[in-house]
Amino acid sequence: MGYCFGIDIGGTTVKIGLAAEDGTLLEGWEIPTRKEPTPEGLLLDIRVSILDRLDRGLDRGKKQKIRRADILGIGMAAPGAVTADGILHGAVNIGWGDVALAEEAERIIGISPVCVGNDARLAALGEAAYGAGVGARSMLMVTLGTGVGGGVVLNGKVLMGESGVAGEIGHMTVNPFETVRCNCGKMGCLEQYASATGMVRVAKQVLAKRREDSLLRQKEVTAKTLWDAARAGDALANEITDAVSAYLGMALANAMYLVDTEKIVFGGGVSKAGELLLQKVEKAYRSRVFAHSREKEFLLAKLGNAAGMRGAAALLLQKIR
Amino acid sequence: MGYCFGIDIGGTTVKIGLAAEDGTLLEGWEIPTRKEPTPEGLLLDIRVSILDRLDRGLDRGKKQKIRRADILGIGMAAPGAVTADGILHGAVNIGWGDVALAEEAERIIGISPVCVGNDARLAALGEAAYGAGVGARSMLMVTLGTGVGGGVVLNGKVLMGESGVAGEIGHMTVNPFETVRCNCGKMGCLEQYASATGMVRVAKQVLAKRREDSLLRQKEVTAKTLWDAARAGDALANEITDAVSAYLGMALANAMYLVDTEKIVFGGGVSKAGELLLQKVEKAYRSRVFAHSREKEFLLAKLGNAAGMRGAAALLLQKIR
Repeated sequence: MGYCFGIDIGGTTVKIGLAAEDGTLLEGWEIPTRKEPTPEGLLLDIRVSILDRLDRGLDRGKKQKIRRADILGIGMAAPGAVTADGILHGAVNIGWGDVALAEEAERIIGISPVCVGNDARLAALGEAAYGAGVGARSMLMVTLGTGVGGGVVLNGKVLMGESGVAGEIGHMTVNPFETVRCNCGKMGCLEQYASATGMVRVAKQVLAKRREDSLLRQKEVTAKTLWDAARAGDALANEITDAVSAYLGMALANAMYLVDTEKIVFGGGVSKAGELLLQKVEKAYRSRVFAHSREKEFLLAKLGNAAGMRGAAALLLQKIR
Repeated sequence: MGYCFGIDIGGTTVKIGLAAEDGTLLEGWEIPTRKEPTPEGLLLDIRVSILDRLDRGLDRGKKQKIRRADILGIGMAAPGAVTADGILHGAVNIGWGDVALAEEAERIIGISPVCVGNDARLAALGEAAYGAGVGARSMLMVTLGTGVGGGVVLNGKVLMGESGVAGEIGHMTVNPFETVRCNCGKMGCLEQYASATGMVRVAKQVLAKRREDSLLRQKEVTAKTLWDAARAGDALANEITDAVSAYLGMALANAMYLVDTEKIVFGGGVSKAGELLLQKVEKAYRSRVFAHSREKEFLLAKLGNAAGMRGAAALLLQKIR
């Protein structure tokens, strides 16, 4: 029996999962993300944590050690673009520049191989392999959080792309006439409307411009209060959620004209808005596509924030097979 | 030695190519497209034409017959969406409804297998296998003609998609505020600005609104006279070509956020505008993408209108290997 680790490096914590070679997650835990200009310290923390875990062995009734020789490798999700040459380009949230992360990790952790991918892409792979996409030939995942990310999975493999941006749908231009800049420096990106922060931005604009009473005027607007108010029948909240869903549906229609997947899966904090979000986005989507491509499956993600870690393990298992 | 046929069914002619099993085109010819509500007549015409061709054999110095047993199959490009179940949906230019074209062709022509794909997708595959995309890991092809079509080739395989619209980039929405309808019934499609007819439409709008003198006021505006005038330094023509290139560059940037290919290849009649088109579109593209994905290869297609026929043969050869 072989084992592998799936590791998801986030801005606050590093999620580490120990998986069996069939992909089953045996155990998952977290350590804090050490923020330094280079990854050595963080990789040392990971090394200590996983060697410690190996020492404790598998506790299934009787003590069963995991030998180093049984470790097949590590899959690693990182918050930045990973190009075809294996370089991680500027993980801004952590403060690294360009890093040959796989090489560094193999050297410092002392386990080979280490396969690295972008965190949103690997979350998509995780959902495809073990979550909402199980059984689908192809899937687009959309992650609606502080930003908007995504990933394309075709025939079980996640598309990484030449420059590491395949699936980076948050930065598709949806409004060529926008004059406010996105965090990325461009203007009119999907993320400016459909991320949690983007939705709040749009809501505040509408609230400032309009006089109608609304539940949204009673407390601080967040993506959650916005969708809760829409669900409670608030007219302005429904208008705002329709507007942001229109951009999201249009971006997904545009995406389907490229990758035309079987399923579209929604993850990230905003996806907690649930069925109402799916309904509004699907309606907008259907208005922007040909009749014969209207019937896509719109689904909510299932793995929550374990998706990246699970997908990292899946990437490793695919690479060594 | 095996042989196959690559067939491209167009609105006016059917292009038929005889290829060797390594994909080399041995001979290509055309027959007129019989326009009837169902494909039987056209398939009979194809049957007659290729049986006749087989009878004549290979003329390489000495007469060398091609035996029916040496025919590996037929690849067929059709002008409509082909879904994963092999159905051709409404080839509008010819007047067919939904057709199980591969099955019909196998029955009527009497050669198996027949593999069917959308013509724009197979033109992309043709360019990838034998034209501008040779050696590339991945490629997006954009066909700028009366309409705008395209295809995505990843690791040598063309993406067909679940509903047959993968690569249908002419109908990506690039202007969510457009009020004029596209031929497809939607509004704001790339095709409304970047097809030959779209460019003429935009040019006429600008010419009607403005007073400046221009070479474009001297004769009927076509995509050719528009780009010729731009090349000659005409200010209005440059403004118009900049505007349509801005939409095209933005659509390609959006496309790269999904498929992130190594090359972008331009075919179709408008691509005869050549380097000036590539320059303008690339400039617009670069303004809409992250710094690390700016360096894409922008190339002109090489196979002209043989691309679909060659790609059809490539599809067949991939399927039987």
